Amino acid sequence: MSRTIKIEKSILEKNDVVAVRLRKMFSGRKLAVINIMSSPGAGKTTLLVETLKRLAPKIAIGVIEGDIATDHDAQKVEEAGSPWVVQINTGGRCHLEASMVEKAFNGAPDGLDLLIIENVGNLVCPSGFDLGEGHRVMLGALTEGLDKPKKYPGMFRACGYLVINKIDLASVLNIDVSDYEKEALAVNPDLKIFKTSATSGAGMDEWLGWLESLVTKGE
Amino acid sequence: MSRTIKIEKSILEKNDVVAVRLRKMFSGRKLAVINIMSSPGAGKTTLLVETLKRLAPKIAIGVIEGDIATDHDAQKVEEAGSPWVVQINTGGRCHLEASMVEKAFNGAPDGLDLLIIENVGNLVCPSGFDLGEGHRVMLGALTEGLDKPKKYPGMFRACGYLVINKIDLASVLNIDVSDYEKEALAVNPDLKIFKTSATSGAGMDEWLGWLESLVTKGE
Repeated sequence: MSRTIKIEKSILEKNDVVAVRLRKMFSGRKLAVINIMSSPGAGKTTLLVETLKRLAPKIAIGVIEGDIATDHDAQKVEEAGSPWVVQINTGGRCHLEASMVEKAFNGAPDGLDLLIIENVGNLVCPSGFDLGEGHRVMLGALTEGLDKPKKYPGMFRACGYLVINKIDLASVLNIDVSDYEKEALAVNPDLKIFKTSATSGAGMDEWLGWLESLVTKGE
Repeated sequence: MSRTIKIEKSILEKNDVVAVRLRKMFSGRKLAVINIMSSPGAGKTTLLVETLKRLAPKIAIGVIEGDIATDHDAQKVEEAGSPWVVQINTGGRCHLEASMVEKAFNGAPDGLDLLIIENVGNLVCPSGFDLGEGHRVMLGALTEGLDKPKKYPGMFRACGYLVINKIDLASVLNIDVSDYEKEALAVNPDLKIFKTSATSGAGMDEWLGWLESLVTKGE
């Protein structure tokens, strides 16, 4: 016997007032801002580090690192060439909120070209919190299996961009990357998709080109 | 420049009253109950399906499936041999709560030997919510990298048991399983550890043996 129980959705949106204020401020500075989300271990930090190694010589990329605990990621990102990094330890909370970003950004230097916010590793909570970013990016690892878009539709719909990462493991996993694409597009047909392996470097050029285009447009 | 901001921890523990009631009820029935937690895509459902295929002929295993959306997992689990499955769709919430389990368990048949609660895929929120279970099991996939114990200490400390899954990929990932063990034990030295590949079947015997021992003890 199988039955289904639905629990009413709780909505917490006092966050939005701060997000609107942040977006206006970022826009005034012509600062491109992206918010990257994924489940734990999908490879956000590795992608970020590899991005910085390649772009830091020509673009000033500030980073806000969200994490439950530790500042390991901030250290890695700084070593990879970011001129300005803030680590937010959420003390157990599963997502960043606009007020945390506002507090963290206070005191940021002029001259940043791009701000990358690495959210807490979680496919649920972060999707509900607008951080004032210009673009939301979801990173999905091929190792997580093909059912993630259908199981976490809120996250896949909240994002305009999807990075399918760890594509170097496709043959070992016996997964076709195009099947992941199909599953994701079935949930959100408007997704623009990048396919990368941050460790092997595959697909990085298209991703980096997109980031550079954001800086050119200042959004 | 790198700095760290700490956000005060918020504690929601009205859940505990219901959890105490549930634990008493499970104990009265001599029903062994485990709560399995992991990040999305670590392999909880596959482990559960492979467990059912092997144990369902001799043990009546009821399952409560927590998910944000869809009832795919409940279907898979039922097909694998569970006599009683309830799917809880949390409608966006990132964890199960004791009250959801209480509602779901209402109407469960007599004669179940073991109840497995598969929590929502998330390494943060579920660890704070006691569901009245006898044992908490954390499932970590080798593909998620070695830094998860340090980054999600709350989860690793909330659990008495750790299943390191996807060990068949160790050589491809160039990761030594014993290094994952060391990282986990550094955060929680009391963890009892299983090492499995639910897809290849490696390490399943020890895991199944432990489940059977719980049923024998009725806890």
